[in-house]
Amino acid sequence: MNTQDLVKPIARSTPSKIVLMVLDGLGGLPDPRTGKSELETARKPNLDKLAAEGVCGLSVPVGYGITPGSAPGHTALFGYDPITVNIGRGVLEAVGIDFPLQHGDVLARGNFCTVDDKGNITDRRAGRVATEINVKLCQMLSTKIGDVQVICTPVKEHRFVVCFRGINLSPDVTESDPQTVGVPALEITALHPVAEKMAEVANKFSDFAKKTLAAQHPANMALLRGFSQKPHLPSMEEIYKLKPAAIATYPMYRGLARLVGMEILKTGTTIEDEVATLRENWDKFDFFFFHVKKLDAAGEDGDFARKVQGIEEIDRSIPGIMALKPDVLVVTGDHSTPAMLKGHSWHPVPTLLHGQYCRPDTVMAFNESDCLRGGLGIFPATNIMPLALANALKLSKYGA
Amino acid sequence: MNTQDLVKPIARSTPSKIVLMVLDGLGGLPDPRTGKSELETARKPNLDKLAAEGVCGLSVPVGYGITPGSAPGHTALFGYDPITVNIGRGVLEAVGIDFPLQHGDVLARGNFCTVDDKGNITDRRAGRVATEINVKLCQMLSTKIGDVQVICTPVKEHRFVVCFRGINLSPDVTESDPQTVGVPALEITALHPVAEKMAEVANKFSDFAKKTLAAQHPANMALLRGFSQKPHLPSMEEIYKLKPAAIATYPMYRGLARLVGMEILKTGTTIEDEVATLRENWDKFDFFFFHVKKLDAAGEDGDFARKVQGIEEIDRSIPGIMALKPDVLVVTGDHSTPAMLKGHSWHPVPTLLHGQYCRPDTVMAFNESDCLRGGLGIFPATNIMPLALANALKLSKYGA
Repeated sequence: MNTQDLVKPIARSTPSKIVLMVLDGLGGLPDPRTGKSELETARKPNLDKLAAEGVCGLSVPVGYGITPGSAPGHTALFGYDPITVNIGRGVLEAVGIDFPLQHGDVLARGNFCTVDDKGNITDRRAGRVATEINVKLCQMLSTKIGDVQVICTPVKEHRFVVCFRGINLSPDVTESDPQTVGVPALEITALHPVAEKMAEVANKFSDFAKKTLAAQHPANMALLRGFSQKPHLPSMEEIYKLKPAAIATYPMYRGLARLVGMEILKTGTTIEDEVATLRENWDKFDFFFFHVKKLDAAGEDGDFARKVQGIEEIDRSIPGIMALKPDVLVVTGDHSTPAMLKGHSWHPVPTLLHGQYCRPDTVMAFNESDCLRGGLGIFPATNIMPLALANALKLSKYGA
Repeated sequence: MNTQDLVKPIARSTPSKIVLMVLDGLGGLPDPRTGKSELETARKPNLDKLAAEGVCGLSVPVGYGITPGSAPGHTALFGYDPITVNIGRGVLEAVGIDFPLQHGDVLARGNFCTVDDKGNITDRRAGRVATEINVKLCQMLSTKIGDVQVICTPVKEHRFVVCFRGINLSPDVTESDPQTVGVPALEITALHPVAEKMAEVANKFSDFAKKTLAAQHPANMALLRGFSQKPHLPSMEEIYKLKPAAIATYPMYRGLARLVGMEILKTGTTIEDEVATLRENWDKFDFFFFHVKKLDAAGEDGDFARKVQGIEEIDRSIPGIMALKPDVLVVTGDHSTPAMLKGHSWHPVPTLLHGQYCRPDTVMAFNESDCLRGGLGIFPATNIMPLALANALKLSKYGA
């Protein structure tokens, strides 16, 4: 049985408050020169104090050996099964630019690319064309095909989002992006009879793009992938009886939070801004998703030192959060991003839960090797929500 | 969702190489006189060094408390669900003698037994009749019943394999072997209407065996059990995009490897032979299943000292393997076989994973109690393949 099916009937609304602090890409690997990971290297007295007082463990976002993208990493943290809940690339790009999704829309991720005079792709990113050009090209490509409205919205450089808006559209189609060069864009085909209209419209759009962009070298063609629709997710309020809010500096994480029914709070660009937002809204909600991006960005860049500094900066924000006296504070990540691997990884994520009713363990420092000895063990990330709710006394007894 | 369904879409072929070293029956229990298990007693500097550099844990082949046979033990290690994948006794005996299975064959394990003049069984193993007699009796019993060819092939002593080859045969029938003495062989009945032909043929074969063997006391009857067909398993190449090879000195393990599509490499009878085979074929494959039988045999015999010697011998083979520089080396077992229990057991199996990207733990020695503190925790054996693939950088990111 799904964790949420178990929790839903016993969840109850109470005044207690939960903060779920998600440090994107938190987990790391040792620097071979020192044998210490980013967390083991950073000076972080506040996080260590929380670890010492609370209960720790290592959370597994999707499964052993599985490196999660941002979407499954977060759905798991919100308690949704990251395997059955499938958020496609198109939808993720769209929520990442705050695109106003409507019921029935099919979204695709678009790439402006370069093709030669035979139509073969020579550069899948059109030389990372400038965003201003992207803006202009998206205007040229927004059109109507039959009764389907096609809305192109720029993201950045060569990346854009295509929204197909109309009736009877299904995302079950193949992609036109061959993800390689030297070949032409692929014909899009329906994977189910129900998707035939979508395939036809998408192919017509490809033809339209080819003609419309012909003189726009290097961005003289567009490739589509990740056709998807907004998933129908029950809201966190419905399942957990929470009044949840999201604080995140990056739009993609606000978008993910919106998909599970969180209210999105306006905030600035720094962790201090986010703490200020938390403080200002403290009385209005009983659950806060507090997302910090910077560790993931440093890890992706392979910048061990910057990831260490980021951890130290986050550590300095902890007293401001604890001053609000959350009943439960969880500090975790949606996945590991070791600087050594310059990307997301499969390694379990250090996780701590601080609250009056946790059973403390012997962990005295917040890092990968100490959390391994923690009271939560190595556990699926979907268990974090039930644990947080239980520790906030928001779950009744299960069964007679 | 099955682990393999998760892994299949993200698996990619790369030049990196994985060695899955399966030390059959690896796990043990302490000798009550010393308080030390076989692994804790053996001197094994090379395995301990791998454990110190790598990440360790205890793998659970099927479930807590479940003692696996060789088939589920291995299917789990290969990443197949050992509960839904059912390799019957008949098929296992057949693959164990390299019997050339054909699509549609129904296989049964046969026992030559002794019956008295009332037809009641007095010895289920016919006094462990000599293998030469078995060979002769199998020739006498190979026959044709209607349009079904019946091929009897000797295994050893009283054991043989019966292959029923024909159309419309189903293995869903009961067994004739009552697994006790003092009663006659059981009538075989169809468990589904589709198996009625099989039941009829099997009963005719029992009658034929009774008449044909009447004068062959003590082997004057044959009992059948474990009717089964070769399961339809997707190959490891199909699921993992690997080019896998098997090195095993015992035919049963080669047979299990063949069922999942591994290429079987010719080797000798010793561990040195197996290492030489690995070396000779190193460039041709990217995954090697390397099976060592001797610990299980010593455990089954209750020979603690011989199991310890076996571990020390295996340890001496490690430098030869590491000289090939595998990207990932996993050392594990298909189950525990404690000398103290003289048989397979349910105890979790010490497991180590060595590779450049593993997150090292504090384990410094390869044994049951140290692995318990390892970074992999106590985990299902079906996770070993995803972990090995991830550490060899053969898995893409999951989800958007």
